Amino acid sequence: MLSIVILGTGNIAKHLAGSLSKAEGIALTQVVGRNQEQLQWFSGLAPTSNDFNAIAEADVYLIAVKDDAIVEVSKFLSDKKGIVAHTSGTTPMDGLKVENRGVFYPRQSFTEGRLLDFKSIPFCIEAHREDSAETLKTLASRLSNTVSNIDSHQRKKLHLAAIYVNNFSNYLYGVGENICAEEGLSFNLLKPIILETAEKIQTMSPMEAQTGPARRGDEKTMQAHLTLLHDEKQIELYKLFSEAIKKVYEEKL
Amino acid sequence: MLSIVILGTGNIAKHLAGSLSKAEGIALTQVVGRNQEQLQWFSGLAPTSNDFNAIAEADVYLIAVKDDAIVEVSKFLSDKKGIVAHTSGTTPMDGLKVENRGVFYPRQSFTEGRLLDFKSIPFCIEAHREDSAETLKTLASRLSNTVSNIDSHQRKKLHLAAIYVNNFSNYLYGVGENICAEEGLSFNLLKPIILETAEKIQTMSPMEAQTGPARRGDEKTMQAHLTLLHDEKQIELYKLFSEAIKKVYEEKL
Repeated sequence: MLSIVILGTGNIAKHLAGSLSKAEGIALTQVVGRNQEQLQWFSGLAPTSNDFNAIAEADVYLIAVKDDAIVEVSKFLSDKKGIVAHTSGTTPMDGLKVENRGVFYPRQSFTEGRLLDFKSIPFCIEAHREDSAETLKTLASRLSNTVSNIDSHQRKKLHLAAIYVNNFSNYLYGVGENICAEEGLSFNLLKPIILETAEKIQTMSPMEAQTGPARRGDEKTMQAHLTLLHDEKQIELYKLFSEAIKKVYEEKL
Repeated sequence: MLSIVILGTGNIAKHLAGSLSKAEGIALTQVVGRNQEQLQWFSGLAPTSNDFNAIAEADVYLIAVKDDAIVEVSKFLSDKKGIVAHTSGTTPMDGLKVENRGVFYPRQSFTEGRLLDFKSIPFCIEAHREDSAETLKTLASRLSNTVSNIDSHQRKKLHLAAIYVNNFSNYLYGVGENICAEEGLSFNLLKPIILETAEKIQTMSPMEAQTGPARRGDEKTMQAHLTLLHDEKQIELYKLFSEAIKKVYEEKL
């Protein structure tokens, strides 16, 4: 039985607590956080405390707080024997000021109130001690089917890659919504193609999946599109992407 | 019973033929195309012909050929009484040189060999004659749950909006794949977040769903990301999106 303490009360803490409290072979021993109101949310899942000087003993301490509070929280864990792991994509493992340190990073975007299937979320593990890496791997494999050893530099790059496919794609969805709104069209008309685009690359490389006028080098359609646009940012994005896509496939010819 | 002739043998023709041949109240009367090899694909679904002077009589002729061949194909239909509709997002309805003309535009991206659930594909209908609009609507509603009246200008803009959410997002997926590859990481690590990002906006507006350092105005993380990048195009995209996202949310403050 692995005993776990979660530090933090935000989105990741909630998703982890929900999933850990249901996982086999795991005891969610305590949730510790400053925000008394947010702590309430966890009260059905584990004992809670807002006192960082009263953290329970556990095999693993998962720090799920904002990046700039990780070091501060880890100081309260300096005399603990258990593994102290943060859950951040951008913070190096060595940012933790304890000997038995590690990282337990779920590569997913967590939204308040949205249920996620943890089984399909890739977990990225790193630890200073080999036995601790094994423990974190065991813990992750109780939650997910995909567990990978990923070092701090790789994790930073993975987090950065996710900015493109998540944050920037979402911005493009917003552009699509705006263009529809200008014409009195429902954003619902775009939802199926958004989903299909994301589903397609589950089994096909994006390079292979690419379609559209830029890939075909169809200058006539691209020029016609530019005459339809008046928003500067939309025009800038259109030109930049079209040039980039054209370049990729010209090189292939 | 509505009788249909499909002109063309490409991706859209195949998807339409597959779906129409199974739909109730519809007779797929003929598929006509130049490419004898491609025509073979349709032989189990309907009679086929490669002679555009031997097009059968039907209630609706669906032109599913490349945009620049639509006018040419429509000339072979000038003496037909049935509705002549193209399936293109970018071609105006009046590009068809027949009196009983219309548009039958499925707003989805069709990939060879990928099965799609037609029920969830929005169909965009336009027709010169009111009774023809009704017929095309009836036809579309046999295939899909979402049928909308959309004029030629709106359709052009909808097609353009789809370029952003489909073609450009897919390019971003490729950037993510490249960043992973540089670090020896599997693109599989990004697939769940790509799907989650697309699923999230099925019930949440993209504006609301936006996350990441640019939305938070987290300059420190954005600067750190830029130092990790060396590819010029990746840097250009990072800066452009971050500025654009920051601007949206600064305006909201």
